[in-house]
Amino acid sequence: MATELSQSTLKEKSQLLTSLNTQNLLDSVDAFLFDCDGVIWKGDSLIDGVSDTLDFLRSMGKELVFVTNNSTKSRRQYAKKFHSVGISVSEDEIFSSSFAAAMYLKVNKFPKEKKVYVIGEEGILEELELAGFTPLGGPHLILLSIVLCTMLHLLQVGAVVVGLDQYINFYKLHYGTLCIRENPGCLFIATNRDAVGNLTDLQEWPGAGCMVGAICGTTQKDPIVVGKPSTFLMDFLLEKFNIPTSKMCMVGDRLDTDILFGQNSGCRTLLVFSGVTKESDLQDPSNQIHPEYMTTALSDILHLTNNKF
Amino acid sequence: MATELSQSTLKEKSQLLTSLNTQNLLDSVDAFLFDCDGVIWKGDSLIDGVSDTLDFLRSMGKELVFVTNNSTKSRRQYAKKFHSVGISVSEDEIFSSSFAAAMYLKVNKFPKEKKVYVIGEEGILEELELAGFTPLGGPHLILLSIVLCTMLHLLQVGAVVVGLDQYINFYKLHYGTLCIRENPGCLFIATNRDAVGNLTDLQEWPGAGCMVGAICGTTQKDPIVVGKPSTFLMDFLLEKFNIPTSKMCMVGDRLDTDILFGQNSGCRTLLVFSGVTKESDLQDPSNQIHPEYMTTALSDILHLTNNKF
Repeated sequence: MATELSQSTLKEKSQLLTSLNTQNLLDSVDAFLFDCDGVIWKGDSLIDGVSDTLDFLRSMGKELVFVTNNSTKSRRQYAKKFHSVGISVSEDEIFSSSFAAAMYLKVNKFPKEKKVYVIGEEGILEELELAGFTPLGGPHLILLSIVLCTMLHLLQVGAVVVGLDQYINFYKLHYGTLCIRENPGCLFIATNRDAVGNLTDLQEWPGAGCMVGAICGTTQKDPIVVGKPSTFLMDFLLEKFNIPTSKMCMVGDRLDTDILFGQNSGCRTLLVFSGVTKESDLQDPSNQIHPEYMTTALSDILHLTNNKF
Repeated sequence: MATELSQSTLKEKSQLLTSLNTQNLLDSVDAFLFDCDGVIWKGDSLIDGVSDTLDFLRSMGKELVFVTNNSTKSRRQYAKKFHSVGISVSEDEIFSSSFAAAMYLKVNKFPKEKKVYVIGEEGILEELELAGFTPLGGPHLILLSIVLCTMLHLLQVGAVVVGLDQYINFYKLHYGTLCIRENPGCLFIATNRDAVGNLTDLQEWPGAGCMVGAICGTTQKDPIVVGKPSTFLMDFLLEKFNIPTSKMCMVGDRLDTDILFGQNSGCRTLLVFSGVTKESDLQDPSNQIHPEYMTTALSDILHLTNNKF
């Protein structure tokens, strides 16, 4: 529970969530933006109390938005996952980094006749197709990629999108490297650079930062990052919800993506300790990112407001 | 040929190799240090004129040393490769980054009872074993690595060595990440950070910089680099050859490893354009590394001295 957090953290800039400031936060915020992994669920397991807390916030008339850096699913696939864990969320309340990658190409008028090579999973492929682009690659490209390598100059790859890929191999990395190094003007887009994530609720696994780091290593270039902490997706949120960012609160488990995204966008911020960040990470002298509020888990919002849920 | 290089490069700090300065270089240097990939061979194909040039240099009494960042082979395996392409080189004339990784652990008194997890190929495993260490992992670790992940706290991994691994996969990256992130004091050693290399003579492939970049991405740590441009190996060379570095000339095809290694060590330097560096890379305004001399290929030394070979 929130009260178990050590008092030493209070000396930092962040405030522990209390009954009083939770009420103030609820009074002043019209939309809550949630990260998913480590806030809503861990792998496929819903975190305790999340469902009731979301119901409570909806009952108060708050807009709920889900902003996830995990690119393995499309918005449609995320809506299905929410449904499977008993939470009703519509596709257009979900802003995933897979969607962000497709929107980046669309907004920047990427030519439809050019190909997009994907080091990543189904979510990116689906979002690219929905946006009218032609993806190559994806999770199960192994032997095909060897063939592709010999066809480099036949294929008009104009962008490489790199996200989390549990099926990463040398040939995928080779082809992505060749496209970026040898095709003039080829874009290098990263869905995100999360170091690790929770693919299951048992253990941390490499995040997209792994695959992105590999391609940085071979191309010696920095990617265009479209997921958090980049504020690229905020324009889409503002267009949909028409709420100023000062009346939004970003809730996340990660300092360098969620909280930084909230701060970069001008949102209020709440860090939860149900994911990858430990209290000691926040206190570490090397950490420069301090959320406005912090608490143990999302359900503290419910418990601290003494409501009937 | 050397004379075909554009005159514009001459405006930079580097001198094109000529008959005169080649003779001066030969007169003032007692040992030639060669990179292998892109200087001696490309993949398994010997570069034209290399064998005669090495014979010529030996006939002049020069010491020959081979300093390679390619960690896929051990010194013994490199000596075998030299033999297979018709060049006689002894093991102790070879200084590979696989050997460097093992020597780094030895010099730093790494405890023999601790394990070394390897993301890399046979060369690293063999050198670690020769130095008395216990490696885990290596190229063909796929299913085993899933099992290893569940045994993390049983295995006393005190160092992770990352080099070129053509069999890279998610589970290897996961295990390496866990060791560095969760085992207190676990060392993160990179054999080298070459972006690309020539595994065949046809095309560039990802170098160790790919796998090292991936682990940097998941651990957010910088590795200890033991290969070029680190001067770690120079102490071993000095001990063996007893020649001051000012009387050594480093010959390489790569600015950020070979030439920088030479300069960091106080050697003379010669860049050859038979590998990954193009003349345009040298001229690029962003390039800060300029060799003392440059030429098309190693055999120019032979051609420019009008010798009888």
